[in-house]
Amino acid sequence: MDRRKFLRTVAATGTAAAGASTLSAPAIAQGVKQFKMVTTWPKNSPGLFSSAHRLAERIAVATDRKIQVRVFAAGELVPAFESFDAVSQGKAEMYHGVEYYWQGKSKAFSFFSGVPYGLTALEHLAWIYFGGGQEVWDEVSAQFNVKGFVLASTGVQMGGWFNKEINRVDDLRGLKFRMPGIGGEVLRKLGVAVVNLPGGEVYPALASGAIDGTEWVGPWLDMNMAFYKVAKYYYWPGFHEPGSVFSCGINKKLWDGLTKDQRSAIETATQAEANFQMCEYQARNSNSLEVLVAKHGVQLRRYSDELLMEFAKTTREVLAELGNTDAATKKAYTSFLNFHKESVSWARIGDLAFLRARDTAFGKG
Amino acid sequence: MDRRKFLRTVAATGTAAAGASTLSAPAIAQGVKQFKMVTTWPKNSPGLFSSAHRLAERIAVATDRKIQVRVFAAGELVPAFESFDAVSQGKAEMYHGVEYYWQGKSKAFSFFSGVPYGLTALEHLAWIYFGGGQEVWDEVSAQFNVKGFVLASTGVQMGGWFNKEINRVDDLRGLKFRMPGIGGEVLRKLGVAVVNLPGGEVYPALASGAIDGTEWVGPWLDMNMAFYKVAKYYYWPGFHEPGSVFSCGINKKLWDGLTKDQRSAIETATQAEANFQMCEYQARNSNSLEVLVAKHGVQLRRYSDELLMEFAKTTREVLAELGNTDAATKKAYTSFLNFHKESVSWARIGDLAFLRARDTAFGKG
Repeated sequence: MDRRKFLRTVAATGTAAAGASTLSAPAIAQGVKQFKMVTTWPKNSPGLFSSAHRLAERIAVATDRKIQVRVFAAGELVPAFESFDAVSQGKAEMYHGVEYYWQGKSKAFSFFSGVPYGLTALEHLAWIYFGGGQEVWDEVSAQFNVKGFVLASTGVQMGGWFNKEINRVDDLRGLKFRMPGIGGEVLRKLGVAVVNLPGGEVYPALASGAIDGTEWVGPWLDMNMAFYKVAKYYYWPGFHEPGSVFSCGINKKLWDGLTKDQRSAIETATQAEANFQMCEYQARNSNSLEVLVAKHGVQLRRYSDELLMEFAKTTREVLAELGNTDAATKKAYTSFLNFHKESVSWARIGDLAFLRARDTAFGKG
Repeated sequence: MDRRKFLRTVAATGTAAAGASTLSAPAIAQGVKQFKMVTTWPKNSPGLFSSAHRLAERIAVATDRKIQVRVFAAGELVPAFESFDAVSQGKAEMYHGVEYYWQGKSKAFSFFSGVPYGLTALEHLAWIYFGGGQEVWDEVSAQFNVKGFVLASTGVQMGGWFNKEINRVDDLRGLKFRMPGIGGEVLRKLGVAVVNLPGGEVYPALASGAIDGTEWVGPWLDMNMAFYKVAKYYYWPGFHEPGSVFSCGINKKLWDGLTKDQRSAIETATQAEANFQMCEYQARNSNSLEVLVAKHGVQLRRYSDELLMEFAKTTREVLAELGNTDAATKKAYTSFLNFHKESVSWARIGDLAFLRARDTAFGKG
């Protein structure tokens, strides 16, 4: 069914059945569209489900409540990792998640989420908005009838939780460690027995000794997970994710049929939520770090320069392999690398130089 | 006239006269409100006027075009620095500027714009959204019948343009240098003949030798100003502004009379524009830096550690004086300092540690 025919059907019947088309059936009453937003998040999880919920409300407000969005936790409508397919096929209108979850469809998606030694929060969003990232992403997603939008980045993550000190690569070999994504590939190459576990299973696995360590996000969400109760050392910095970037996607056929103002309103809603959520990570991470150390006696440990350089060397290898998987991934990789190069040069005399001077003058010593 | 009476008047007449009240007279036709947004920016200036314009369009879209905003360049309706008063008194409904322009009314406003050795882009916004900053700001602004919103930060600025090398404090003494705000106070204490000039006068002054040097923003806007034609050395990092934070304000009585959804829509519009504009600075700064060096032969110079420590020491003194001006300023200063302390600690193991490791592994050497 093409869009025009679909719209005529909607007009005639006040509703529409999702048939052979990939377009879903928003319940239409008095011009109000009802969207289902499936997410990859547990119900009410802070910084994740809460953000999807706020995004839904922003979309409603910004469209004069002509688009209403109902948010579903992982598993409520479809399992977490089927969210993309659900939107692609029209079972849901939108998803909220992280693009690397769709790596199985195209390795290119990795570049729109978290890349080891990649881009920091604002750098990553800047690449997508202004550096050609969105255009590459649109090409990749359009193959699946999806239009994607970037949301918040978590900011620089922590390296993870261990029960023994890690000084050199040998100390990592054979450890069972939870780390998803490209970072996990890097550790695997270095001899780590990398495992991936859904959020709810990580704490019990660490408590029982089924895994030796885990990374999660940063001080805020890691404190919520109470890892400090079952792990002693908290390593930094998280080379593997200078930020996990969240995203949402909308059924492309549906998107193309919205009015110009509705599309602008949705874009504005995503950009606002990205900003607000990034700032929440920033504020709560710094506050939680203090609590973890002062109240829970967490011992912070810095990855040695030797380890950080090993991680970097292996990251280059893994990214080069990944980036050459297929034409679309190569395009994303090349665009990302170009922006990365400029960002590293600018950070050296901008953010890095400032933070270094500030730390020397105002840090605790 | 109280709000209820005002609304009754509006309902009865379809328009409202600005009388003894501080409230302006939005032209009301078919429920559409017409807002005038005065700005402190030259017409069509990129990264400044362009952002005000985009914000106006976002507000219109997000309110289903029930609020329409007309943007005025500096001087078109009122002179730049009278923007705040215009909104306070109801001559305009909104302004777009930088809070330190209103320092004459309360020193507290300085903390909502750029503070030497202060907070980086996301840290600053995080303080305002989640660290108590907005609450203090609201108290200060309410005294003037204004409600303020944070917009983008420029990100870490550059130290500025010189025609001689600056290695120690002695090299600065007696130099005529343009730097507004608290950073200018710091330089003044160190013996610099600090001057402040509106944007349009800076280039001619530097070209004629009327001033010896200037700071402006960062590679993007500095390249637009063509300072590379009349100055040789470009110093980093900009200790004085780890980001200038833009802001907009709305007449508070008008704000209080908007519907809940209209207020939410305006908040979402400001947050979206903040995000998008920060990313534009991020992307264009890194790209322009490359052009300045490769194409225009600009010579980058790093402020020595000795200078950076002198700047820091003097910054502490200036901030402590400023922060004790009056009760409101002290409240802002205390809240800012608490957030700053946590942010410095988190940056040390987060952003700073990551950027340092990335620069070592992926920088140009």
